[in-house]
Amino acid sequence: MRLNIGVIKGDGIGPEIVTEAMKVLDKVGEVYGHACSYTQLLMGGASIDVHGIPLTDETIAAAKASDAVLMGSIGGDAKTSPWYQLEPSKRPEAGLLKIRKELNLFANLRPAVLYDELKGACPLKEEITDGGFDMMIMRELTGGLYFGERKTVEVDGVLTAYDELTYNENEVRRIAKRGFDIAMKRRKKVTSVDKANVLDSSRLWRKVVEEVATEYPEVTLEHMLVDNCAMQLVKDPRQFDVILTENMFGDILSDEASMVTGSIGMLASASLNETKFGLYEPSGGSAPDIAGKGIANPIATILSAAMMLRFSFDLDKEADAIENAVAQVLKDGYRTIDIMSEGKTQIGTSEMGDRICSYI
Amino acid sequence: MRLNIGVIKGDGIGPEIVTEAMKVLDKVGEVYGHACSYTQLLMGGASIDVHGIPLTDETIAAAKASDAVLMGSIGGDAKTSPWYQLEPSKRPEAGLLKIRKELNLFANLRPAVLYDELKGACPLKEEITDGGFDMMIMRELTGGLYFGERKTVEVDGVLTAYDELTYNENEVRRIAKRGFDIAMKRRKKVTSVDKANVLDSSRLWRKVVEEVATEYPEVTLEHMLVDNCAMQLVKDPRQFDVILTENMFGDILSDEASMVTGSIGMLASASLNETKFGLYEPSGGSAPDIAGKGIANPIATILSAAMMLRFSFDLDKEADAIENAVAQVLKDGYRTIDIMSEGKTQIGTSEMGDRICSYI
Ligand SMILES: CC(C)[C@H](C(=O)O)[C@@H](O)C(=O)O
Ligand SMILES: CC(C)[C@H](C(=O)O)[C@@H](O)C(=O)O
Repeated sequence: MRLNIGVIKGDGIGPEIVTEAMKVLDKVGEVYGHACSYTQLLMGGASIDVHGIPLTDETIAAAKASDAVLMGSIGGDAKTSPWYQLEPSKRPEAGLLKIRKELNLFANLRPAVLYDELKGACPLKEEITDGGFDMMIMRELTGGLYFGERKTVEVDGVLTAYDELTYNENEVRRIAKRGFDIAMKRRKKVTSVDKANVLDSSRLWRKVVEEVATEYPEVTLEHMLVDNCAMQLVKDPRQFDVILTENMFGDILSDEASMVTGSIGMLASASLNETKFGLYEPSGGSAPDIAGKGIANPIATILSAAMMLRFSFDLDKEADAIENAVAQVLKDGYRTIDIMSEGKTQIGTSEMGDRICSYI
Repeated sequence: MRLNIGVIKGDGIGPEIVTEAMKVLDKVGEVYGHACSYTQLLMGGASIDVHGIPLTDETIAAAKASDAVLMGSIGGDAKTSPWYQLEPSKRPEAGLLKIRKELNLFANLRPAVLYDELKGACPLKEEITDGGFDMMIMRELTGGLYFGERKTVEVDGVLTAYDELTYNENEVRRIAKRGFDIAMKRRKKVTSVDKANVLDSSRLWRKVVEEVATEYPEVTLEHMLVDNCAMQLVKDPRQFDVILTENMFGDILSDEASMVTGSIGMLASASLNETKFGLYEPSGGSAPDIAGKGIANPIATILSAAMMLRFSFDLDKEADAIENAVAQVLKDGYRTIDIMSEGKTQIGTSEMGDRICSYI
């Protein structure tokens, strides 16, 4: 099979970690007989440096022409980088918001998994996480407060700012279906998170999710208020299988959940549209403080490449091979610095990529 | 001094825990020479049962006529209680939203404290919480998404829901000033939480908070994005002193922070307006499953009464006396069931109140 992959290396540690993911993809191609062809695309800070804006029409067009996009991380140090002298709509992250909308990437999947090998890094006590946990946060990514109308107006010398949260039932339905579809391949439980005791959008959300649920009689649905969910992630993360929620709640809860694992450097993500197309990126940030040092953890990006094989190319066997190789290297005791612990062997970004390749 | 206190016993465990707080207030009155007079007010489910609505004009008027209101907890089991057959605007919690607005209670203070005696209940590993933590979440309580315009409209058979998030600079300024005032009495650090990389309201928030900060040169201000804050609360709660944030972010983060302590039954809260008036209530819910059993933890409500003495009556010595008495009883090894651990003595709601009184 020919895999036509757009690559956005991104900022900070992005280029280093993406390089390792490409190395792993090439090895998969070699072993399983696929040809990966890569088109390098600019976005974020790297695009500002060259074009003055974080996302050009050329990048959008080239991304659309690919089967899938693999991305490093976007952005820099907000305190020191000149990118953050620009107004918000011109900063690196604006490119991320724009590409989501342009490519209609409404379904953001963020697994939060506690790896048994890494439970030492988990901030929660062992009795809470005993046996591990494995949840999938399904965040709506192109609607809600992040894409509503916004404005700041001055009346009689007083500034007032407005942001609008809006969802229509079709937007809710398509993400809900995705959530239930994923749950069917997992432990068949969906926790839909909203603030239905206050928001109209949440009441619509809940209504539509209940309608969709009737099409999936095997899946158990529960509703949870967002404030309660923020508590439950800390109190008992094992209770969750799929968490289905809107854009902003998903932003907050997925980051909380990833920190609860203690190993954000291990967490992949996928942003999908109605077709097979997807954008795949690590959950963590661009970590400008360690960029260029060869110590960043490439595993989240490598696992994002595995998600790409699974969701955009239906290459489940190949995705499994990557995931198993990662597990094997962890088992062998190799760690990058962010997941290092006593008695393990610390290695750099590139050696981690090599070792994962060696098991494929 | 004469303390003219409105009392909303509320639902579930509310009446039991408020009774203990009144007992403690009476003891304080006796020892320090104050006369507490209580006016019982109905709100929430208890008000629905009698008047059909969760908050009557009489309750609002009587609350306004008091110096302060002490409240238990509002609401019931959403799955089984008949209150939840009513439309959302008529449910118990609607009374809570309404009284906040009617009494202009814009400043919600929620301490999240890890008591050394109770660190066993904290879900975080000991190395993260070593030495304990003590933060104050300052949540804006009468603006933002929870009080904006909302509507659901049907166009061509498709439902669309809208909720508006709006803040004007005066609303931001008054809560920011409160946050900095509190920080001045604490460790002089304010973490202002927003989503300024996306929302106009957050950009206004950040601008105004920076202006206010110039009036408090001794206070260190940092800005943190809400998704990052949700992570930092789990990763390193000791870094926080005052967290200053808008209504919805505060709802989510304060609940997360309270769960991070592991002892939600210990956490008080205050909701204040521009005057000395305030409404004081425990952070936890109405726990209908254990209502009437005499096992609920009254400490959060008793500590809320202490906050009332401090903020509404400037009776700092008396507030200290309550807080010290609570600490003493914990030290003696007495626990209600929710905070029970090996080697401690389990007692009920009323004995807990008695023991706290005995130290005043
Ligand atoms: C950079 C920012 C706009 C973005 C978001 O909030 O969606 C990020 O936090 C994320 O979660 O991908
Ligand atoms: C009951 C609900 C409306 C309320 C809120 O979200 O403000 C509650 O969760 C709280 O935090 O006091």
